[in-house]
Amino acid sequence: MGKYDALAALLLEAIREGGDFNKEANVSSIPVGISNRHIHLSQADLDTLFGVGYQLTKIKDLSQPQQYACKETLTIAGPKGAIEKVRILGPARSQTQVEILQADCFKLGITAPVKMSGDLQGTPGITLIGTKGSILLSQGVIIAQRHIHMTLEDAKHLGVADGEQVTIQIGGLRGGTYSNVAIRANNTSALECHIDTEEANAMNLTATSKITIIK
Amino acid sequence: MGKYDALAALLLEAIREGGDFNKEANVSSIPVGISNRHIHLSQADLDTLFGVGYQLTKIKDLSQPQQYACKETLTIAGPKGAIEKVRILGPARSQTQVEILQADCFKLGITAPVKMSGDLQGTPGITLIGTKGSILLSQGVIIAQRHIHMTLEDAKHLGVADGEQVTIQIGGLRGGTYSNVAIRANNTSALECHIDTEEANAMNLTATSKITIIK
Repeated sequence: MGKYDALAALLLEAIREGGDFNKEANVSSIPVGISNRHIHLSQADLDTLFGVGYQLTKIKDLSQPQQYACKETLTIAGPKGAIEKVRILGPARSQTQVEILQADCFKLGITAPVKMSGDLQGTPGITLIGTKGSILLSQGVIIAQRHIHMTLEDAKHLGVADGEQVTIQIGGLRGGTYSNVAIRANNTSALECHIDTEEANAMNLTATSKITIIK
Repeated sequence: MGKYDALAALLLEAIREGGDFNKEANVSSIPVGISNRHIHLSQADLDTLFGVGYQLTKIKDLSQPQQYACKETLTIAGPKGAIEKVRILGPARSQTQVEILQADCFKLGITAPVKMSGDLQGTPGITLIGTKGSILLSQGVIIAQRHIHMTLEDAKHLGVADGEQVTIQIGGLRGGTYSNVAIRANNTSALECHIDTEEANAMNLTATSKITIIK
């Protein structure tokens, strides 16, 4: 029996016995959260854009604890064009961050890098236009790198660690895999895979979809 | 030696020997063509929209032989909204077909299926608005299924056949794989993998990118 025949026979035997391969690959089903372009603001920038001491108005809780969508939106403007009604997410953060889609880069005339939330070094700026003022940010625009929020217990169960990058699998006619999906495990998170609308549409994912980690 | 150790040893040996696995997987580098929303028109519909006997004005040849982008655009309108300046591609075809993005479905208020070009049975209609008239199509709106155009010689070289579905691999931080990419092999095609702008942006592909068939 040749090498490839032996390999095929062993693979078949392993598949027939079942279970073990799946266990090793940490297969599990994870809900999807789809983000459109949005903005996180510092309190200082919030003051400039909407007036000193302004408080954001929650309209909807998000899946991640304490995070919410606000009634307030901003216009964002680059050298080639502007996008109106970009949603602000609350609460206020330590630094302002604008998360856009790849398609928005063309409209705005800027080149935003794919980065993890909070990693703003070397990112381009943009103009934010509010009801009481405008700000020319010197940095803060990213395309969010896809990531999976989870508790430390989820991470243990799934066999992954905070900061690790995994591959996820999506089924269906428009299915496939996304590589380099960052694990963000801490005890203030809810289990959810965050992708943007272009990543969702390309794979035909909706708010009720589930994905699988295949590592 | 246990079953898994034997399997691992055989896999390692095969990888060390190199070549064979790659040859079987038909690895090759294929240029990418990125489509935004666009329209193919029948001559009858062209007559209604722009006037009897109207001839389209070529502004740019496309990669596929005899295909070109036209100066002319249309407004497309659904129950929830309209999209202006949707490019017409020439020459005229036997039936009118509107290829949109998943994101456009929300704007227009319609649900378009992922289908191969030409397969319009059961697809939704839409209103087309030209300079001389409008048409309410009863069908013809699709999200184009990703596909790879090639000659029969390319297909032979790549070890694939017309109508087959393959998986393609994309490298980089936003890389991954797309499944169910249809092979369209005939002698009037140029080698090119066609995806839409959302599929391109989700994987950070541009007009100069290359993809690989991994089957």
